[in-house]
Amino acid sequence: MTKTFEPLDSGSIPRYAGLPTFMRLPVAEPSQVDIALLGLPFDLGVTNRAGTRHGPRELRNQSSLMRRVHHVTGLSPYDRARVADCGDVLTDPFDLMRSLDLITAHYAGVKAAGALPLTAGGDHLISLPILRGLVQGSLATDGPVGLIQFDAHSDTYDSFFNGARYTHGTPFRRAIEEGLIDPKRFIQIGLRGAISDAGNYDYAREMGVRIVFIEELVARGVDDVMAEAREIVGDRPTYVTFDIDGIDPSQAPGTGTPEIGGFSTREAQAMVRLLDGLNLIGADLVEVAPPFDPSGLTALTGATILFELLCVLAGAVERRAR
Amino acid sequence: MTKTFEPLDSGSIPRYAGLPTFMRLPVAEPSQVDIALLGLPFDLGVTNRAGTRHGPRELRNQSSLMRRVHHVTGLSPYDRARVADCGDVLTDPFDLMRSLDLITAHYAGVKAAGALPLTAGGDHLISLPILRGLVQGSLATDGPVGLIQFDAHSDTYDSFFNGARYTHGTPFRRAIEEGLIDPKRFIQIGLRGAISDAGNYDYAREMGVRIVFIEELVARGVDDVMAEAREIVGDRPTYVTFDIDGIDPSQAPGTGTPEIGGFSTREAQAMVRLLDGLNLIGADLVEVAPPFDPSGLTALTGATILFELLCVLAGAVERRAR
Amino acid sequence: MTKTFEPLDSGSIPRYAGLPTFMRLPVAEPSQVDIALLGLPFDLGVTNRAGTRHGPRELRNQSSLMRRVHHVTGLSPYDRARVADCGDVLTDPFDLMRSLDLITAHYAGVKAAGALPLTAGGDHLISLPILRGLVQGSLATDGPVGLIQFDAHSDTYDSFFNGARYTHGTPFRRAIEEGLIDPKRFIQIGLRGAISDAGNYDYAREMGVRIVFIEELVARGVDDVMAEAREIVGDRPTYVTFDIDGIDPSQAPGTGTPEIGGFSTREAQAMVRLLDGLNLIGADLVEVAPPFDPSGLTALTGATILFELLCVLAGAVERRAR
Amino acid sequence: MTKTFEPLDSGSIPRYAGLPTFMRLPVAEPSQVDIALLGLPFDLGVTNRAGTRHGPRELRNQSSLMRRVHHVTGLSPYDRARVADCGDVLTDPFDLMRSLDLITAHYAGVKAAGALPLTAGGDHLISLPILRGLVQGSLATDGPVGLIQFDAHSDTYDSFFNGARYTHGTPFRRAIEEGLIDPKRFIQIGLRGAISDAGNYDYAREMGVRIVFIEELVARGVDDVMAEAREIVGDRPTYVTFDIDGIDPSQAPGTGTPEIGGFSTREAQAMVRLLDGLNLIGADLVEVAPPFDPSGLTALTGATILFELLCVLAGAVERRAR
Amino acid sequence: MTKTFEPLDSGSIPRYAGLPTFMRLPVAEPSQVDIALLGLPFDLGVTNRAGTRHGPRELRNQSSLMRRVHHVTGLSPYDRARVADCGDVLTDPFDLMRSLDLITAHYAGVKAAGALPLTAGGDHLISLPILRGLVQGSLATDGPVGLIQFDAHSDTYDSFFNGARYTHGTPFRRAIEEGLIDPKRFIQIGLRGAISDAGNYDYAREMGVRIVFIEELVARGVDDVMAEAREIVGDRPTYVTFDIDGIDPSQAPGTGTPEIGGFSTREAQAMVRLLDGLNLIGADLVEVAPPFDPSGLTALTGATILFELLCVLAGAVERRAR
Amino acid sequence: MTKTFEPLDSGSIPRYAGLPTFMRLPVAEPSQVDIALLGLPFDLGVTNRAGTRHGPRELRNQSSLMRRVHHVTGLSPYDRARVADCGDVLTDPFDLMRSLDLITAHYAGVKAAGALPLTAGGDHLISLPILRGLVQGSLATDGPVGLIQFDAHSDTYDSFFNGARYTHGTPFRRAIEEGLIDPKRFIQIGLRGAISDAGNYDYAREMGVRIVFIEELVARGVDDVMAEAREIVGDRPTYVTFDIDGIDPSQAPGTGTPEIGGFSTREAQAMVRLLDGLNLIGADLVEVAPPFDPSGLTALTGATILFELLCVLAGAVERRAR
Repeated sequence: MTKTFEPLDSGSIPRYAGLPTFMRLPVAEPSQVDIALLGLPFDLGVTNRAGTRHGPRELRNQSSLMRRVHHVTGLSPYDRARVADCGDVLTDPFDLMRSLDLITAHYAGVKAAGALPLTAGGDHLISLPILRGLVQGSLATDGPVGLIQFDAHSDTYDSFFNGARYTHGTPFRRAIEEGLIDPKRFIQIGLRGAISDAGNYDYAREMGVRIVFIEELVARGVDDVMAEAREIVGDRPTYVTFDIDGIDPSQAPGTGTPEIGGFSTREAQAMVRLLDGLNLIGADLVEVAPPFDPSGLTALTGATILFELLCVLAGAVERRAR
Repeated sequence: MTKTFEPLDSGSIPRYAGLPTFMRLPVAEPSQVDIALLGLPFDLGVTNRAGTRHGPRELRNQSSLMRRVHHVTGLSPYDRARVADCGDVLTDPFDLMRSLDLITAHYAGVKAAGALPLTAGGDHLISLPILRGLVQGSLATDGPVGLIQFDAHSDTYDSFFNGARYTHGTPFRRAIEEGLIDPKRFIQIGLRGAISDAGNYDYAREMGVRIVFIEELVARGVDDVMAEAREIVGDRPTYVTFDIDGIDPSQAPGTGTPEIGGFSTREAQAMVRLLDGLNLIGADLVEVAPPFDPSGLTALTGATILFELLCVLAGAVERRAR
Repeated sequence: MTKTFEPLDSGSIPRYAGLPTFMRLPVAEPSQVDIALLGLPFDLGVTNRAGTRHGPRELRNQSSLMRRVHHVTGLSPYDRARVADCGDVLTDPFDLMRSLDLITAHYAGVKAAGALPLTAGGDHLISLPILRGLVQGSLATDGPVGLIQFDAHSDTYDSFFNGARYTHGTPFRRAIEEGLIDPKRFIQIGLRGAISDAGNYDYAREMGVRIVFIEELVARGVDDVMAEAREIVGDRPTYVTFDIDGIDPSQAPGTGTPEIGGFSTREAQAMVRLLDGLNLIGADLVEVAPPFDPSGLTALTGATILFELLCVLAGAVERRAR
Repeated sequence: MTKTFEPLDSGSIPRYAGLPTFMRLPVAEPSQVDIALLGLPFDLGVTNRAGTRHGPRELRNQSSLMRRVHHVTGLSPYDRARVADCGDVLTDPFDLMRSLDLITAHYAGVKAAGALPLTAGGDHLISLPILRGLVQGSLATDGPVGLIQFDAHSDTYDSFFNGARYTHGTPFRRAIEEGLIDPKRFIQIGLRGAISDAGNYDYAREMGVRIVFIEELVARGVDDVMAEAREIVGDRPTYVTFDIDGIDPSQAPGTGTPEIGGFSTREAQAMVRLLDGLNLIGADLVEVAPPFDPSGLTALTGATILFELLCVLAGAVERRAR
Repeated sequence: MTKTFEPLDSGSIPRYAGLPTFMRLPVAEPSQVDIALLGLPFDLGVTNRAGTRHGPRELRNQSSLMRRVHHVTGLSPYDRARVADCGDVLTDPFDLMRSLDLITAHYAGVKAAGALPLTAGGDHLISLPILRGLVQGSLATDGPVGLIQFDAHSDTYDSFFNGARYTHGTPFRRAIEEGLIDPKRFIQIGLRGAISDAGNYDYAREMGVRIVFIEELVARGVDDVMAEAREIVGDRPTYVTFDIDGIDPSQAPGTGTPEIGGFSTREAQAMVRLLDGLNLIGADLVEVAPPFDPSGLTALTGATILFELLCVLAGAVERRAR
Repeated sequence: MTKTFEPLDSGSIPRYAGLPTFMRLPVAEPSQVDIALLGLPFDLGVTNRAGTRHGPRELRNQSSLMRRVHHVTGLSPYDRARVADCGDVLTDPFDLMRSLDLITAHYAGVKAAGALPLTAGGDHLISLPILRGLVQGSLATDGPVGLIQFDAHSDTYDSFFNGARYTHGTPFRRAIEEGLIDPKRFIQIGLRGAISDAGNYDYAREMGVRIVFIEELVARGVDDVMAEAREIVGDRPTYVTFDIDGIDPSQAPGTGTPEIGGFSTREAQAMVRLLDGLNLIGADLVEVAPPFDPSGLTALTGATILFELLCVLAGAVERRAR
């Protein structure tokens, strides 16, 4: 692999200068890269507080604080894979269903171009059309994918408000129904918070989804839980979705449905690092809502999680290249 | 008229205590009142920054600072009309077109109950279904109504994003097309800001809508402009719509499309007071977006404009009762 | 028990719509319910930063995010007890001593009505008149009650500023002196922060109050400490008071006397859940000061702790009903 | 007069360095100066939002931005009078009536020391004990004083909440009743906002107080109104009280009872400058509430008004010295 | 002229999507355009509150709200001139003098490329090296240029802190000394605020600079003052510098040295529009400091002033092309 | 030792009253005290976000919340040592190198006066001239000192931006090069975050500096790591530097280079307490940037760490006095 794209050097060009692309990377087309950083400004799926449409811009902004080399591995993702800011995925602000189709087509294109997508959302509904774009085309041959979800909520509700089936509370039920993900290779980590009905988790449980509530995570520790997660998804293709509200709201207040008592950023970083070696096909970071983030901390947290995800994706790219 | 509803007495019950209903009024049904204060939490019509779905709650909250008697007229609207908080108009957060129908039906009901609606929005698209509810039923007999619009924008665009015809930038074009308002009895006051295309005002002008840009308002003064406004709408039924972004963003920053150089609250209050004596059928105050209003000033401004509108509506009620 | 009161269904009515009652519950009288949610807007007891008078309103506001069923127990408090928003307790903003009497009388009334009070304060002084209202009437027959206090401060000072004996730093000394609480059945958890004088804890210690500093809590863990707490209060009537400043200020910055290094919300939730099975007569959540809470996180934390307290109170109601 | 006290030179010592005394002046005793800048941290008189107890500290903080020489007159108050920061007036946070006595005694002392007090409040109730301290001792010989009040509210209510007669809504009724001010030499400028009862202004009017509502101020202009004000108070001793809520909340949002539609800072400065030449005995600037002032603009506005007041007071000192 | 560069169409691509370039324009080189929009992130010249290094990024961000066509003239600058975002001018964060040289060289290059620079600062010191870059090369042949300055401060101090001669309080003294600007063709509009020394304006006055204090501007009105300004600079080459602190801090709080009582945005817009027809060689907008701008209003105001400046510069381009 | 200086008694003088000196202590000269609390407002060393020049003022402000006696040891630093606020160290805002010399001279003077300095910064570059002032004079006789650094970053870079060698990323490389600190007696605790280059830690490692990344700290616990730290520095003279960004940004968001996943305040306090008994010659707390700290939590955290550092310094003073 020829190393092609590098972030601006913050020792030469101050972090406050220049256009805020993701990680201060060049802008490029998916076909030019191994990993495509994408913005997906979208919040038509929210049930209460909107604002995630502004997420990609602030995540780009705060990502100016990121650097090149991971301090634990000593490796730079930019040495292991070609990475660039591939712009925003456009949707239709007045048409939810058309937007889902636009997103699906966009990600099918990214996949066709040979790049792994790393997406900055957007509300959690976007994971559904992303999965459609990545999986539908090869469903007949390759079958559904595995899924590791970091989140405070299960997002496997059936519907809201007079039968709305496409919301940020329903994407993974749809994805299971559509055969995009294999519920037996699906683990949810960090769930918590009161629920609307005692049966809210029934569907997921019946389908075989593994739910790790925050209480279990705290009791067992991240190493043990992540070992189980790795076993569940195995070595087959797996997608990763990280809802920022999985993290405690003291570290990520700017989100639509905050739940106190979440996992810490330290735990989050440790868990993402333990994704290394999996057969990853992409990842997303969702639910950063800048209007509710006066200090910018949520976007900083989100940008750092994006960097951690980028590092494990770069490892996946590198392994495939060998 | 029997005086029935009074705000809580802030000399007995502190303003910080009690549920934040509009103006600290009791909750009642439209059939019990002359003027129905209604919340319309809605932002499916916005083209950029959402958040007006949270408007009614914060307008109620800040309305705790309002008092009973207007200091210029020395009159209390609560002595002149029965007024209550008639709750929120429910919509469908995932279905724009169904929401419009729900709103239309709701206002037809308010009208049938004999109450004048004073609405706290919500984005500006809500004025369309409100007008449908108030006008459609009597269109055959009474014809379209007049409209006085305080605003930074004309909101007479044709469409956005792939033909979206129902947005907060299009309600009054639709209302003219549907025959709900008489463009010859329609005046827009305070418009300003760059436009997307030189022809953006063409439709309004061709239909005969009177546009008063901020520059003209400043040059002529509010008395002169409002005299013209009163002449334009005459003594036939007239609706009033007040977009908070007409006011300068220093006094109303929490809105989706702020434009600097607006009219002041002093000018706004003077203009609303000069609506007294018109044949008013209702009014709305729209585009307060609390997520962009850290200090709460926008909601305070909005609540005070609602009080001013309430006073002139109470006058209209009183005159009809005579 | 007939199930009577339910929160608004957030799958039908969006969380941003409707009046912000506690937990989106109906408004009712104490005599209609088993558990009365009460607001107590009050801050005449503060020694430095005021603002808790605005606490109940913001706690109600953020409680719109709460749901019905506890995710760990799988139980809904609304299935186990009749619960409603019983409004605000009114006080006199210019007369501290009269306010204490008004509060005392109010809670005596709640007790007489047969409801357990769950109060959203207000500064910590309110626990004194609440205890008076709940205990004084039955003191001759039943004696003092036990108390579990989650807090950063002991609140057992004698006086401030020229002999002020009724402040948010003194309620529990007064309550011991008045025989309302049994100091041998009184445990304080989470205390920390520098003190004004080396003897500040002497009174509490001499009376037999058990003080668990944060350092001990961290060293032993919440399970061990709560086992001790349960043993200390035993199966006799016990009140619970939760000062939001017990929680770390990163998770609850909006309070008058923040102390860094507190327990986390995860620990707080775990501790409150371990109150289940105790003979509880009521609880309060105090010291939420919205003017110092720009992000609303403190009120969200407080509302969630109120929900956790509600769940254990509902268990107490259910057990008594059997 | 020997020039004694000078602000720190911002050309040598940066504004961000050093202790934030008023105007970066030295700390001194009233007996050492002609004009005593005093902080009066107090908010026991507020009926709704507290926080003015934190006013003096933030006013000191923002006053670091002030400079030496008035740009219109070309004169420095520090060349015309000895001015220093004379510290805070201490009160009793739990005893309103005792606090009033402490304040009265303090200002009697300032007067005895020969200094004119310029006070940074604190809520508006403080003007009453300040006037007591300045006037009571010489009432028999000199009679009541004149008063010029810049404000959104009349503050001549009789009482609140069960007969509370000492609140920030009542000081000037008390001051008239106590014979401290001559109602015929009392003018209120900028009043506005709805009132609780149509008779709220009756007392002031019956006593002969001149009320200039904001509408009249706008219509006539500041020059004309101030000419009348000067005529009303004449050349006898006069006190000036400036409630920051007289200024529009866009320029002074951090206050307990904001009213939109106020006078601007430009108008405020022009009015204060027109006090030059009057026989001034002191002045205060009240109702700055930092917890409601996230941007610090209110304190900056307040500090600048304090500087303007200082300049006219220095003129009064200079004239007497001649 | 071939129309080349257009902003993204906000009717197709939502304003929240895409990279925040100035006015949503393409990125290009100065040699490709008639007007080069440039960011100059820099705050080494500030004497108190820093933060203008973050100005360009937030001005770009808020400029997403701008549109194409000026509503008063009905003209689009993009129809009259080729305009693009030409990136940031890089400086050395640790070397003030080297930074001035870097800036000078950059603007000499812009001039050589044939583009008029419109700069988003940065503190006010940047105007000095910009003028050097634009004027030094042609000084022998063309002589100094005229200057119109909108500002609260004169910025003609000699030095600060032990002789610092290059600060944001000194650029125009240096520019006069260096012969870059003709003091007889130099007008300053909006000055106000106390000064450090009665002689602070002496230098400017002695050199013949015309100072219009805010009081004169208010008394005469913007039309009259701008007529004088146009006469002063005449038809020879003129530069325009707009310090955001000239605008009242209620409309532009996020700046290092706010002064209350400034001109309004309405007045600012009117004044900039009256620059039309002058022989302009460039312009800058300086002193936007985002860390002190929590609501983003200052950057919105600044972005709108940039658009107004762009419109008059486009007129100058068009006239020259004829 | 004669106890001389005491903080204001918050039981008599409310915390909101009085000038905000450090810990509400008197102002004094270094020669009068054992421990000199010093402000060092400075941010010329920052590479990205400035603002630490405002740190000392806000640290003083929030330190009003501190009290006298440490709750774990039961000891008051004011009983063990004479402590006062010794004012701000002045620097030259436009001359980095001159500023370093001014700081060096100032601390040499503090040392000569016999006081231990406890400094509130300022960016991290200040540790270099502080060490120069404390160590250079006795280098020939006593040799270099030990250093314990709590931080997210190593700050041992060589240079930035065209060879800038004096920045907040380079102080400890310079200090090692200058022989001020013994790299073998130097431990860095809490490091984390991506780095610009894989070799960023090479210099420190080659010199023998002990780096404890956050991952190791979490794995081993604070007791174990601090035992190692104590062993590394031994009983010879040691300086302590605490960068607030070592603490997690949820507890200290207001800093220039936040890194998520840091140690908690609980861990920070535990670590500082374990410095007790070391041969301390001074300490600093740096990188508090108030413009990025809207809630004030960072300054509160910083002030509390200053108190913890003060307690261990007081122990060092007391031991030497025996």
